[in-house]
Amino acid sequence: MNFKFSKWQGCGNDFVIVDCFKEQIDDFSNLAITVCDRHYGIGADGLILVMPSDHADFKMRIFNTDGSEAEMCGNGIRCFARYIYEAKLTTKTLFTVETGAGIIKPEIILTAENTVDLIRVDMGEPILAADKIPVAGFGSEQVIAQPITILDKEYKMTCVSMGNPHCVVFVDDIAQINLEKVGPLFEINEHFPKKINTEFAEVKDRGHIRMRVWERGAAITLACGTGSCATIVAAVLNHKTDRNVEIELDGGLLFVEWTQAGTVYMSGPAEKVFSGIYSV
Amino acid sequence: MNFKFSKWQGCGNDFVIVDCFKEQIDDFSNLAITVCDRHYGIGADGLILVMPSDHADFKMRIFNTDGSEAEMCGNGIRCFARYIYEAKLTTKTLFTVETGAGIIKPEIILTAENTVDLIRVDMGEPILAADKIPVAGFGSEQVIAQPITILDKEYKMTCVSMGNPHCVVFVDDIAQINLEKVGPLFEINEHFPKKINTEFAEVKDRGHIRMRVWERGAAITLACGTGSCATIVAAVLNHKTDRNVEIELDGGLLFVEWTQAGTVYMSGPAEKVFSGIYSV
Repeated sequence: MNFKFSKWQGCGNDFVIVDCFKEQIDDFSNLAITVCDRHYGIGADGLILVMPSDHADFKMRIFNTDGSEAEMCGNGIRCFARYIYEAKLTTKTLFTVETGAGIIKPEIILTAENTVDLIRVDMGEPILAADKIPVAGFGSEQVIAQPITILDKEYKMTCVSMGNPHCVVFVDDIAQINLEKVGPLFEINEHFPKKINTEFAEVKDRGHIRMRVWERGAAITLACGTGSCATIVAAVLNHKTDRNVEIELDGGLLFVEWTQAGTVYMSGPAEKVFSGIYSV
Repeated sequence: MNFKFSKWQGCGNDFVIVDCFKEQIDDFSNLAITVCDRHYGIGADGLILVMPSDHADFKMRIFNTDGSEAEMCGNGIRCFARYIYEAKLTTKTLFTVETGAGIIKPEIILTAENTVDLIRVDMGEPILAADKIPVAGFGSEQVIAQPITILDKEYKMTCVSMGNPHCVVFVDDIAQINLEKVGPLFEINEHFPKKINTEFAEVKDRGHIRMRVWERGAAITLACGTGSCATIVAAVLNHKTDRNVEIELDGGLLFVEWTQAGTVYMSGPAEKVFSGIYSV
């Protein structure tokens, strides 16, 4: 198997994108494990496939480094959207993308010189009912500042689905959190039948949050777009910030808004790093 | 800046190779830092440059992830040699390469079907005089099973230069060594004016060694070719193995021989992973 790909990053969260309009590949799950390997493969946090859709302008599928398929990825869809635009698969700056989390609408924000500035993504509305996220033990109630015990320490979790499940924990000092140690224990906690992405968030002021993330199936990553959206929703539900917040991640900045109408918008960068040809 | 590259690995030790016969690049040190980054760059353990030489068939320069230049790299030169052969820069299977550690002579070993099997490298003769390695405090003597204290624990070190400096420590059980903790402390120990690569080696029998390495300027790597050579030399000097040994590294197998005549030969794989175009 021989295929062309391009490598992209959004806030340091990096992806191999393969355009299935042009390339013939299969066995996506095993291919993701192979190509995401950073020594024996191309190296990435995930493999993104660009595909045709019956329900939207395009379809995105995304596979984690362990071969599992993700419903959606906020940084990934910005890279996906910029790829679509730069590869001239569309001339529209606003289009629809079918994902495992439903139809997502990315918008290319251009500079005065018509170069790509940011990609703004309508991430849809958060899901707050516990059984829909899913979080076990709370029926269809919202899970806001509820206790969870990890390694004999009690944390307060606020749970939000942005198509994929998130557990947001507000802390006074993020430097005190041993993410490598507690992240995997949140991930497999009995509260989370489909496992969980966990965000530790330190509120700097009503417009700024510092956040770090443990991603389900991918360990610590430099940034998580859906996690940033979940964090804003959790922050507003806990009356900690306004609805328009800048999030400082290990890998860069994202700008996230949860409108009164209920939609979450995320804006951030997406950059092509290189393109290549891979032989398996 | 826009250049073509290919990505290679030998025992999981991975390199971006840029052919300076074809590509115009400069500021190699900063470029290495940028391209070796695994999230924002191509991702590699090192950047290898293919260049013309006044003294040999070709010249290899290699830069670590931190931008420092290495004299030589055993896994790197196998990748370099296979690149030269596959890119048809020569039709010879045995050629000379100028490196920071002198002239190295790699040989392409072909299968019966004329495909590349292994790359065998004449790694030259080890340097054993302490002041030439360099190791401070031993004059021009050999450093064989000498004590060194790291974190209040005494180890026995045997020091060997294969063009770059190595400190080999034999241990009964390699699983007991916290390489991430002690590696950097060996690296900056006062015995080593030019810092040091440290190999922990467990002798399985007279023909087999399990070895792990902390590389100067690169941290833990999956394999180290010159380190494997230094390990055989140290093993023979300490009467622990024969002169022809298979070394099991985190990233794969290498076959190393220290002949009675004094030359060290290393044989192992080198594989192209992908090729690409990078824009800075």
